[in-house]
Amino acid sequence: MERVLPFREDLKNGTFWLLDQRRLPFEEVWVPVRTGREMAEAIRQMVVRGAPAIGVSAAFGLVLAHLAGEDLEEADRLLRQSRPTAVNLFYALDRLRPFWGDLEATLQTAYALWHEVEETEAAISRFGSEVLLGQVLTHCNTGPLATGGYGTALGAIVEGFRRGRVRHVWVDETRPYLQGARLTAWELMRAGVPATLVTDNMAGFLMGRKEVDAVVVGVDRMALNGDFANKIGTYALAVLAHHHGVPFYAALPLSSVDPNLESGEGIPIEERPAQEVTHLMGRPIAPEGFPAYHPAFDVTPHTLLTGIITEKGVIYPPFHEGLRRALGLL
Amino acid sequence: MERVLPFREDLKNGTFWLLDQRRLPFEEVWVPVRTGREMAEAIRQMVVRGAPAIGVSAAFGLVLAHLAGEDLEEADRLLRQSRPTAVNLFYALDRLRPFWGDLEATLQTAYALWHEVEETEAAISRFGSEVLLGQVLTHCNTGPLATGGYGTALGAIVEGFRRGRVRHVWVDETRPYLQGARLTAWELMRAGVPATLVTDNMAGFLMGRKEVDAVVVGVDRMALNGDFANKIGTYALAVLAHHHGVPFYAALPLSSVDPNLESGEGIPIEERPAQEVTHLMGRPIAPEGFPAYHPAFDVTPHTLLTGIITEKGVIYPPFHEGLRRALGLL
Repeated sequence: MERVLPFREDLKNGTFWLLDQRRLPFEEVWVPVRTGREMAEAIRQMVVRGAPAIGVSAAFGLVLAHLAGEDLEEADRLLRQSRPTAVNLFYALDRLRPFWGDLEATLQTAYALWHEVEETEAAISRFGSEVLLGQVLTHCNTGPLATGGYGTALGAIVEGFRRGRVRHVWVDETRPYLQGARLTAWELMRAGVPATLVTDNMAGFLMGRKEVDAVVVGVDRMALNGDFANKIGTYALAVLAHHHGVPFYAALPLSSVDPNLESGEGIPIEERPAQEVTHLMGRPIAPEGFPAYHPAFDVTPHTLLTGIITEKGVIYPPFHEGLRRALGLL
Repeated sequence: MERVLPFREDLKNGTFWLLDQRRLPFEEVWVPVRTGREMAEAIRQMVVRGAPAIGVSAAFGLVLAHLAGEDLEEADRLLRQSRPTAVNLFYALDRLRPFWGDLEATLQTAYALWHEVEETEAAISRFGSEVLLGQVLTHCNTGPLATGGYGTALGAIVEGFRRGRVRHVWVDETRPYLQGARLTAWELMRAGVPATLVTDNMAGFLMGRKEVDAVVVGVDRMALNGDFANKIGTYALAVLAHHHGVPFYAALPLSSVDPNLESGEGIPIEERPAQEVTHLMGRPIAPEGFPAYHPAFDVTPHTLLTGIITEKGVIYPPFHEGLRRALGLL
């Protein structure tokens, strides 16, 4: 069960290596990062992506800033500006701030953040593996590459396979960015889990043929009632699963629950450039100048969810109560 | 309202021109076809595609065989072998067979076949336009390029726009072949109909936002109860439309109804090469050697259909009765 992490620590040589995810799965290129400024640039350019992985990378970016003798205020600012929507990035940098100037404490905090990601995801994977069985379908990329740990939905799938519960995985290619085809497929291949790539529009057909026993996806942000935002296409999958009576799970660390959000209605949907739909790897797939629309996320209502897989266990309806209890708000 | 046909007749110069659909929308290349053998090869290589367009092309292929003094038995055989699953191809060649050796009669029959496609689709477009209103979503390519006439689902959409009923079209890109992004987008642009390209996994999101007033798709083969096979992804769209209370229509000539088929269970699903999923325009989008699955069609049950748009009008439930009546079987 090989697990490829998105980064490699070599601080005694003043270097933090990032696996360039823009070039996966075609080339495995490791990029050396030696300063906070370089780390900010690498995050901005999406050499590393996935909210938890960005958080850990930013923390080590500040360690590098210490090592390189950079201005910490400047490094912190650049890192915060690198991907302004990734909450984990701010959380990580906030955790480091009290220790500025103390290299050892900064380093220990960065390691602690990384360790927390691993521990949380080991628990998510364990609890998740217990509810998955047979053939599982997933969307987008939620594996170690996205987190630096074991992954969330993909962690549960891989652990489910290791325990002999999950037999085969259907990988949604996940248009327009193809995170499924490029990253999830690569991770499952490296982990030795039997898997098959499909286009996103095949999921309904597979469910109709009873070839899907469960769907499990990650979460970008969840409201207190269980409504959640995730990669575009998640909502359609949830409707299809509901129609076919296929269990549908969301897997996430409890830190992705927004305690200030009562329902999913308040979650804004990021619109990304139309060019990401009309072009694929730099080449056009539609007539020049043809309009396209690219909502990057959608919101799935909790009514379509079977269960929420967290590091404290699987939460079942009523989600409002279960989530508050898990968050210590009850 | 420009309508681009997939072929151009220039028989006085012994030539039938095909618009090379493999190179659309990037280049408009017209390929001269001068013999039956050349036509068979052009159909096989998908220079022209779409069942009705293939039927008309094959008919003119036999005309070219006459003009070029080819062996007609051989030309007929090659044309029949070019795309063995397209029913229209056999139908067209069967219609010509009684007139072999009579160039004028063969020519008139080929024109008659073409004219019938145009008349049938003009009626489908007219009836279809009356049930469409506001924003319409469609899948795959069902326009003049696929038929040589006005198109089926796309004919209804374009006519609906001309009548001021359809305001805007959502074009599913239609993975893995991208017929929507490449061909439907191009046809709507040329026809001057406001349209926006989306990835297939966005349809559910758009319906949830009430941005889709109706879905209309084409049909590859329909059973007597209204169940029908069409491009992969059609079934998922039908489930999503049903969930959101969005009207869902199938548009087809009555010749696409198989009078020997009681339900959709008997329709075989063509599995195509995995490479068509793992590669896009010749370039890989997944790890080398990663397995993929490519069912090219799916079957939508009639229970998810609002109405069936035909050249004899729109048929509503009970479809079994309406289809038999339209086919003259009642």
